[in-house]
Amino acid sequence: MVVKVYGPDYGSPKRVILCLIEKEIDYETVDVDLFKGEHRSPQYLQLQPFGVLPVIEDGDYKLYESRAIIRYYAEKYKSQGSELLGKTIEERGLIEQWLDVEAHNFQPPLYDLVVQLLINPKMGVASDPKRIQEDEEKLAKTLDVYEERLSVSKYLASDAFSLADLSHIPFSNYLMTTLKKEYLIRERKNVSRWWDDISSRPSWKKVLELHPPVL
Amino acid sequence: MVVKVYGPDYGSPKRVILCLIEKEIDYETVDVDLFKGEHRSPQYLQLQPFGVLPVIEDGDYKLYESRAIIRYYAEKYKSQGSELLGKTIEERGLIEQWLDVEAHNFQPPLYDLVVQLLINPKMGVASDPKRIQEDEEKLAKTLDVYEERLSVSKYLASDAFSLADLSHIPFSNYLMTTLKKEYLIRERKNVSRWWDDISSRPSWKKVLELHPPVL
Repeated sequence: MVVKVYGPDYGSPKRVILCLIEKEIDYETVDVDLFKGEHRSPQYLQLQPFGVLPVIEDGDYKLYESRAIIRYYAEKYKSQGSELLGKTIEERGLIEQWLDVEAHNFQPPLYDLVVQLLINPKMGVASDPKRIQEDEEKLAKTLDVYEERLSVSKYLASDAFSLADLSHIPFSNYLMTTLKKEYLIRERKNVSRWWDDISSRPSWKKVLELHPPVL
Repeated sequence: MVVKVYGPDYGSPKRVILCLIEKEIDYETVDVDLFKGEHRSPQYLQLQPFGVLPVIEDGDYKLYESRAIIRYYAEKYKSQGSELLGKTIEERGLIEQWLDVEAHNFQPPLYDLVVQLLINPKMGVASDPKRIQEDEEKLAKTLDVYEERLSVSKYLASDAFSLADLSHIPFSNYLMTTLKKEYLIRERKNVSRWWDDISSRPSWKKVLELHPPVL
């Protein structure tokens, strides 16, 4: 059964696709155009009642929330492809910690920057300079903690690449490209070294090649 | 080794304590007074660099982010106390999905209501009626999805109580008590039935008895 991933054009579904490639799992994609409001169609809301991306279908099994999906596949195919959940329960605990830090301290301000600077202009909506500044300040504080952590650890959870690092890649890519906020990464030596490492993985290059970002 | 939980007075650390009681794991608590700024002390920031609650110490092992902590203990003591992570990988997938829905769609507006209506008045800070209204609207939309889900499933992820349900208890308790927003639960038949069920567990009664909420 081939996994069906909805919304490959956007950031959060790329988190899932990146994980599937790392785990050597076949998938196909179903386009969902946010700018045409396809995430609000009755058919899509049947699959994902909050109207957000992504969702996957795997035979009869349906799952949403990108980080739940990557946990599921990393666990289900534990011994196939890259090991992404650590070798011990203690390592997995730290991976979960940094996955939640990403979800609560990294993604929210960065997602809002994407809305303010990339989505609003396309929709003809005015952006809010005060919010942009606050987002950058929040992100800078989070990255200060990362800088400290990455000065003693090669990756966030341990010396091995894991779901915690993987989960950062698609939205960090906006920082480094269309958002033009490279400085947030480049001004921090260890964060910069970490980004160069994780973004040069063949899996991410393949994601960019197969599913070029539309934002 | 007894698990040390920081900040038992508040909502997120209660998520951890509730899980430890369900799993029959001994713990002790360390008070952290947010109103005295103790979460900003250099000692606390050594343990939790973002300055938020909770954090645990278990011998040399330290972990933060409440949902990472409950996943860790539910996994580590899988066969002890209540089963909270499901019987299959697919069930765990759905538990992870609803844990992330709680973290992204339920907790943020509810946490902001706690700030606006319970914390700000104590700090002499004015509350923002527009934000309060927006928070209630967001929470209502989330609970509409829950109502639908709970019309076909006894608990959020399956017919068995899990971490996904547990994670909702401490902050829902504010809704039903000091926030005086019972209507959000009571106007929804299945959400109301679910709340009565999960909040009447002996574990939660014990948490309230041992660590009465300060908010």
